[in-house]
Amino acid sequence: MKIAVDGMGGDHSPYEIVKGCIDALEEMSGDIVIIGDKNLIESELEKYTYIHSKITVVHTTDIITNDDQPVKAIRSKKDSSMVVGMNLLKEKKIDGFISAGNTGALMTGALLILGRIPGIDRPSLTAVYPNPAIKKACLLVDAGANAECKANNLVEFAIMGSIYCEKVLNISRPRVGLVNIGIEANKGTSVVKDAYQRLEKTSLNFTGNIEARELQNGIADVIVCDGFVGNVILKLSEGVALSFIQLMKNKLKESLVAKIGALILYGKLKDLKKELDYSEYGGAPILGVRGAVVKMHGSSEAKAVKNAILKAIPYIQNNVVDIIHDEIVMLQGNDSKEGKDE
Amino acid sequence: MKIAVDGMGGDHSPYEIVKGCIDALEEMSGDIVIIGDKNLIESELEKYTYIHSKITVVHTTDIITNDDQPVKAIRSKKDSSMVVGMNLLKEKKIDGFISAGNTGALMTGALLILGRIPGIDRPSLTAVYPNPAIKKACLLVDAGANAECKANNLVEFAIMGSIYCEKVLNISRPRVGLVNIGIEANKGTSVVKDAYQRLEKTSLNFTGNIEARELQNGIADVIVCDGFVGNVILKLSEGVALSFIQLMKNKLKESLVAKIGALILYGKLKDLKKELDYSEYGGAPILGVRGAVVKMHGSSEAKAVKNAILKAIPYIQNNVVDIIHDEIVMLQGNDSKEGKDE
Repeated sequence: MKIAVDGMGGDHSPYEIVKGCIDALEEMSGDIVIIGDKNLIESELEKYTYIHSKITVVHTTDIITNDDQPVKAIRSKKDSSMVVGMNLLKEKKIDGFISAGNTGALMTGALLILGRIPGIDRPSLTAVYPNPAIKKACLLVDAGANAECKANNLVEFAIMGSIYCEKVLNISRPRVGLVNIGIEANKGTSVVKDAYQRLEKTSLNFTGNIEARELQNGIADVIVCDGFVGNVILKLSEGVALSFIQLMKNKLKESLVAKIGALILYGKLKDLKKELDYSEYGGAPILGVRGAVVKMHGSSEAKAVKNAILKAIPYIQNNVVDIIHDEIVMLQGNDSKEGKDE
Repeated sequence: MKIAVDGMGGDHSPYEIVKGCIDALEEMSGDIVIIGDKNLIESELEKYTYIHSKITVVHTTDIITNDDQPVKAIRSKKDSSMVVGMNLLKEKKIDGFISAGNTGALMTGALLILGRIPGIDRPSLTAVYPNPAIKKACLLVDAGANAECKANNLVEFAIMGSIYCEKVLNISRPRVGLVNIGIEANKGTSVVKDAYQRLEKTSLNFTGNIEARELQNGIADVIVCDGFVGNVILKLSEGVALSFIQLMKNKLKESLVAKIGALILYGKLKDLKKELDYSEYGGAPILGVRGAVVKMHGSSEAKAVKNAILKAIPYIQNNVVDIIHDEIVMLQGNDSKEGKDE
């Protein structure tokens, strides 16, 4: 197995990316391909002791930055690590591609170069949503790629997310929850109501609507929503947590006694910040495209890179892409049969 | 001026409601009408010393609970505090109505009994969204009444919210922000993109898109979104804050030193919880209906009741309902003129 990593993407490339690759190698049997500027990457690799045959560097000259407009970048920067990576994946010269680079470009590259799994209307950018209080994370589908969704898109997200949770995260019969403004089936927009009815008819372990208040309680393994709501959920969770830390710091300054308490707690506060950082959980897949593509948070450091690589192994080995294809074909077969019966 | 309070709504009625009324009386010149079970309310009133002519009790026999289906409750429970209150407001026997009861029923009652301000397509249930770290709150429109919105609805919410902030919260040229998944004008759903273009053409102090990450930074005075997103924002903020407090408690249990710090900080943690509780900020108006209706949080205690009553005074005195009407008429006049020019 060959897993390729984008050596140029993210805030800490290439040094943390390379370190993460080295760390991952110790816990896996496959090989790693690092794509990017050969000089930069090799000078990082020189710092470590590792079996040289296990890491290959593929040299590229272009760089897609976070400021690049996704479609334009993918079309014009042919020799960027991202475009080269996607092409290698398409040609089956690698088995998976992981990047901490421009999210929009990664999604666009996956769509334009790899293409959708037949039957999938809208591939989904997922996110790992941490529930730090219970030390568990769940999968948020969609995390921002599809701002506007139809009911069938939400159902596709649910199916793909469920397969990923089962095959990669080892969760048996993952609980699928639909984000809504109330738990009753008749709540929400017409799209969400329709999705509820459709989800009930699938073989998924659909547990019904979930209110945003419950999201951090581990109430579901797969959290389904459109990309607008998913994006609000991700960013707001981050914002509230940071604002809370600030609020706590302000409180702690209010009295001498509290200041003493604060000194004692300083290390714990730092731990807290780390647990709230979703980069700690590694990467999240782009589901619904023809290949195993994993998106890492832009601020990923070595630990997140290592985790993303290790999570990519079962993603590839368990043929998640093929299983999604088969499930969708089966579901649509059933749908058209139902259509005929009526 | 006569402000009526629903004596039967909320988790702590009638005792905290009555106490809030008594407290408010000391800071206002108008009169208060408490609507509900006369025996219950009068036995609460007996506990206090106050000018008896300033408080009237209007006796009702029905109660709308949180489990009641809104439309059915408003139609069938004619002698409930909520229906009686709305009717008194419609007949101009009172100047404003405040309730901590069933939100859906309050919204429905306002729509069915008072009716919409002419020109307003969708009245909005607002919410006061606290930014505890900067000790400031902003107004969220819509907070859940209108899950599905068109661009013109979002513009109406922005206008109404802006007027309320200016006339009641004394914010000059309130900054209006549109919740979106990116700050660029071309981001988001077609509805949000359209709303952006329309908001730019108004005379409002529209500051552009805001990402959910920034919501707690006081980046806008009026936060505009559809009710689905608004509901997610409110409930998620609450959920993340509670989960954070739990996480902190867990952390504090991890070592003896941290336990000592925790003991010292115990009081501060309690303060924190209080600051995050939006009931502390009093009530939020239902904007776009023909009357001053204010919704309090169901868990409101005396302080929130008092604040809601005091905030209702400028809401009534500054003729917010009439100003909304005039603004909407003017805007629609301009719109049709623009239409003719094209």
